[in-house]
Amino acid sequence: MTTSQEPAPTSVSPAATTRGRLRPIGLGRARITGGFWAPRQARNAERAIPAGQDQLEAAGNLYNLRLAAGIDEGEAIGPIFADSDVYKWLEAVAWEYGRNPSDDLLDRQRKLTAVVAAAQREDGYLDSVVQLRQGVVGRYRELVWSHEHYCAGHLIQAAVAQIRCTGDRALLDVAIKLADHLVATFGDSGQGKIRDVDGHPVIEMALVELYRETGTTAYLELARWFVEARGHGIIEGHGHHPAYFSDRVPVREATTVEGHAVRAVYLAAGAADVALETGDDDLLRVLEGQFAHMWSTKTYLTGGLGSRWDGEAFGDEYELPPDRAYAETCAAIGGVQWAWRMLLATGNAFYADAIERMLYNGFLAGVSLGGDEYFYVNPLQLRGAAEPDGNRSPAHGRRGWFDCACCPPNIMRTLSSLDGYLASTTDGAIQLHQYAEGAVAADLPAGTVELQVDTEYPWNGSIKVTVQQTPDTPWALELRIPGWAEGATLNGKPVDAGRYARVEQTWATGDTVELQLPMATRTVAADPRIDAVRGCVALERGPLVYAVEQVDQQTDVDDLHLLVGAPVTATHEPGLLDGVTVLTTEGRPGTAHTPDHWPYRPGLDDSVGDEVPVRAVPYYAWANREIGAMRVWLPRA
Amino acid sequence: MTTSQEPAPTSVSPAATTRGRLRPIGLGRARITGGFWAPRQARNAERAIPAGQDQLEAAGNLYNLRLAAGIDEGEAIGPIFADSDVYKWLEAVAWEYGRNPSDDLLDRQRKLTAVVAAAQREDGYLDSVVQLRQGVVGRYRELVWSHEHYCAGHLIQAAVAQIRCTGDRALLDVAIKLADHLVATFGDSGQGKIRDVDGHPVIEMALVELYRETGTTAYLELARWFVEARGHGIIEGHGHHPAYFSDRVPVREATTVEGHAVRAVYLAAGAADVALETGDDDLLRVLEGQFAHMWSTKTYLTGGLGSRWDGEAFGDEYELPPDRAYAETCAAIGGVQWAWRMLLATGNAFYADAIERMLYNGFLAGVSLGGDEYFYVNPLQLRGAAEPDGNRSPAHGRRGWFDCACCPPNIMRTLSSLDGYLASTTDGAIQLHQYAEGAVAADLPAGTVELQVDTEYPWNGSIKVTVQQTPDTPWALELRIPGWAEGATLNGKPVDAGRYARVEQTWATGDTVELQLPMATRTVAADPRIDAVRGCVALERGPLVYAVEQVDQQTDVDDLHLLVGAPVTATHEPGLLDGVTVLTTEGRPGTAHTPDHWPYRPGLDDSVGDEVPVRAVPYYAWANREIGAMRVWLPRA
Repeated sequence: MTTSQEPAPTSVSPAATTRGRLRPIGLGRARITGGFWAPRQARNAERAIPAGQDQLEAAGNLYNLRLAAGIDEGEAIGPIFADSDVYKWLEAVAWEYGRNPSDDLLDRQRKLTAVVAAAQREDGYLDSVVQLRQGVVGRYRELVWSHEHYCAGHLIQAAVAQIRCTGDRALLDVAIKLADHLVATFGDSGQGKIRDVDGHPVIEMALVELYRETGTTAYLELARWFVEARGHGIIEGHGHHPAYFSDRVPVREATTVEGHAVRAVYLAAGAADVALETGDDDLLRVLEGQFAHMWSTKTYLTGGLGSRWDGEAFGDEYELPPDRAYAETCAAIGGVQWAWRMLLATGNAFYADAIERMLYNGFLAGVSLGGDEYFYVNPLQLRGAAEPDGNRSPAHGRRGWFDCACCPPNIMRTLSSLDGYLASTTDGAIQLHQYAEGAVAADLPAGTVELQVDTEYPWNGSIKVTVQQTPDTPWALELRIPGWAEGATLNGKPVDAGRYARVEQTWATGDTVELQLPMATRTVAADPRIDAVRGCVALERGPLVYAVEQVDQQTDVDDLHLLVGAPVTATHEPGLLDGVTVLTTEGRPGTAHTPDHWPYRPGLDDSVGDEVPVRAVPYYAWANREIGAMRVWLPRA
Repeated sequence: MTTSQEPAPTSVSPAATTRGRLRPIGLGRARITGGFWAPRQARNAERAIPAGQDQLEAAGNLYNLRLAAGIDEGEAIGPIFADSDVYKWLEAVAWEYGRNPSDDLLDRQRKLTAVVAAAQREDGYLDSVVQLRQGVVGRYRELVWSHEHYCAGHLIQAAVAQIRCTGDRALLDVAIKLADHLVATFGDSGQGKIRDVDGHPVIEMALVELYRETGTTAYLELARWFVEARGHGIIEGHGHHPAYFSDRVPVREATTVEGHAVRAVYLAAGAADVALETGDDDLLRVLEGQFAHMWSTKTYLTGGLGSRWDGEAFGDEYELPPDRAYAETCAAIGGVQWAWRMLLATGNAFYADAIERMLYNGFLAGVSLGGDEYFYVNPLQLRGAAEPDGNRSPAHGRRGWFDCACCPPNIMRTLSSLDGYLASTTDGAIQLHQYAEGAVAADLPAGTVELQVDTEYPWNGSIKVTVQQTPDTPWALELRIPGWAEGATLNGKPVDAGRYARVEQTWATGDTVELQLPMATRTVAADPRIDAVRGCVALERGPLVYAVEQVDQQTDVDDLHLLVGAPVTATHEPGLLDGVTVLTTEGRPGTAHTPDHWPYRPGLDDSVGDEVPVRAVPYYAWANREIGAMRVWLPRA
């Protein structure tokens, strides 16, 4: 719950962390001002958000809401979850307004909010497509597919962002009315309520946020009920396979993630919120185990989640094919949301490492350098002869929108709220989790601290923190040393990787701390159980995973081998791909390729030709020049 | 067209090969009498076919036809293509009756045929589910998904089998009436007909067969029209992605197979039939190219076709993951049908090799040793921790039936018509394509030849052919030497692998020919472009691909490595899995497996432990003891 003494919380859906180890920094008090992320946020504001509204208009999402509001007449268009894309976009606009207020952004929010409010039914129900296609009698008829709670969840998240960033209550009033309707409608059947869950989680996170914003415990209680209701046969009782819907086992009995990846991580993030707010340490321990199992057996090098196209799902343990990786952009976003809550709950640097990996790789590849074209699916390999296979195929290159448009506005709201992931506080300390050119301010019990962060991260591992304001009593600065950063130094002294380096002292304005993270290129291999990349290696530098694209090579990427042990040169090229550090090394082309023959034979060997140069670019930047063969994992020569 | 001078053609849907190089052997004149396949055919007759009728009753397929016939009252049950499973079953019963006539089989056919006939509309239309759900106005409303031609095709195939095997015309009359309706209804829109194609091919093969049976050229012409109509935007015009439906490019411009695997190979088989009957050599050359490209870049070691669960589809070139192989049993069956037509057309031993590989591996794994449980999906790897994921998941083990029950009756009709693939003739020769204990008779222009084949193939490579009847003028015996059989001898003299060894002479009754195919175990690797099995090897012996199952090992199959170069011992174990030759060799367990850690690191290596014995069983026999970890491809130690 927000109190008048503290700034409003920020981030996508920040935890107030009543029971968490760490507290998020208040709204607008962690700011990215330059470096790597600032131009991406600028393009998000200038290009993606305006284009997004046009796309929502063109695809009919806004039309549906106008129909439900009685402004237009006609029939609903598009998928049943169409409203949710509007709400994610509204949320993005709100956070963006919080970063950089403008009349235009306020005007867009207010006009659209008025339509949403007019579309809401008297009793609080709101789902334009269901209202238009099924009427009152069709409400919650098939919640497993109808996404009614899913749309409600995104509405609530947008409303919370709006009140925090603009002070406008209009969308919050809609959200409260809708949440009150849900509280009155869903719960134990013994209480005369509907005992059912939405096939697509997100309502759990949203209701906890609304509880934090309003203090209404009924919302937290309903979120808890939705989390606990899963895994007890509700969805199977409707005749559906429960694993896809994260409904095969109760949340607190699950030891891994399974089924539809976005559904799974959204539910886990919601469960983490419930655990945080109810002080449910047992649930938190279970979620730690699930996250650890996901991270060690079901996560791509890029942080990408979900290996199966079929069902957009997590695969079995170690089933991580690079070519058919699904790794939906939304799953990376949900992964970040879950990890952020786990970080606030535990203070474990492991989760901040995970956020970094997902943000710089699996998430960021989902959006073009121009900011307004998107990947739905993020494979780690594309063959030269790959044929596009439907609307979402990466073989098309990034696209302006999708038939199922969940990813684009999800990317927008993530970029516009990114500042919230930079830092947190405890009573006596400030934690810096992610490194970006910018400023962080926080009110510790001892007084207000202001920090300036200067860095060219991730191109350069040097991070300078300057104290701009400080109380005159001691406090601690805690800096995350990434797990990959063996050999890091803080003010010249070695610090351990994979934890927070802590400097506790009495500070003076102008004091500086200098962190040096080693930016040597790393050549990594996969656990042998990840069969799909056996005998291969990948290149990393800092938080970035690298990819080899056809456009940069002299020979065919489909069978290019990497010469392990050859020197790797890192060169920053400011004019390439908006400025990237390129890795150059040596490889060998394959020679054993024999088309037009039965491809399985005794003695077939992975022989290779003469050395050729290999250039690798950051994975996030691939497919911005042309769409062609790409590999993250290359066979060892 | 069948003439009174010749025995009726046999096989699944044999080509009369008016223009083909080879002619099929007449019905009942190639007979499997013992050895490997006979007990499988017996179980198919004794268990699978009766159980299949019970399953069709339980699932509602027969009920739907009774409803359409006015015998029962109610609403249609199950998928829109429900009728097709009935017709495939009827076809299986017909071929089985042809092999082994019984009153029971005749009675089952006649009773069910009467229902089918009664369900047919006056104008020849027949599709029980569409009739019941959509009525006359709903006919062909959405042919891309309705499977109306698909059901018609299977009906026609069953009718052709029935007339050939029983002499009963009842189902043929239905088929003719339906085909005449189709001829009157589909074609160029300039002729006032519907210019549309079914989303699922099979009607093409069926109409050519009906032409062969009846001599009515309109059926051949319509089959040709359906083949030529594809790839001209019809399906895209209905708003669907065309690649899935083999409709992206015209058949004669396609250079590969793509999209839904069963659809693709059924269409190709139908196109081959059209090419055969119309003498269209250009089309035949195109189909040769498509088959070669499929075989060299999109086929599993097992002959399995279709690597993607998503869309049950062929993947890109070399996209052949063993764990997520779809390799639908029906796709292997369609592959056999296509290869058989290409073999008849070209006489190229390559196609008989392909049939052998598909039959003994990708196809046969689809049915249990008991004969009445089925795999829909046939992966080359199952991890120990694999979670079942829906009705078709191989992690369940084989099942008695499926929600989409295309595979079980497809297996039944293939087993009951298997004899037809053994042999063929040209004017002066008999070709033996597949080796099985049995007898082959054929009428050459010089006179009737009868051969006895004695062999324990595939356990033993010795095949003895004894002439039982012969004219006294010369003719040639042509024996396929499989491509894998380097070092084969015929009557003690070396013969080339991958072609037919020919013995032309004047024969006497009692003459014998002895073929020795070397049965050394082969350790094969994959073309390096098949990334998913890099660094792995597989074991083969004769036509059989081998698999390593957890139940036979001392260590975890998930990370078991094979010690290449270690001796491999082949031991026939008559009591195991209905009698199999087991391969025993040495391997090493993995030791680098590190659960609960980030699985990508510098220096991770595929290190292994001490030697352990490895036992491998034929792939087709896997999952008959327990369902557990299985690998065809093992990493090299």
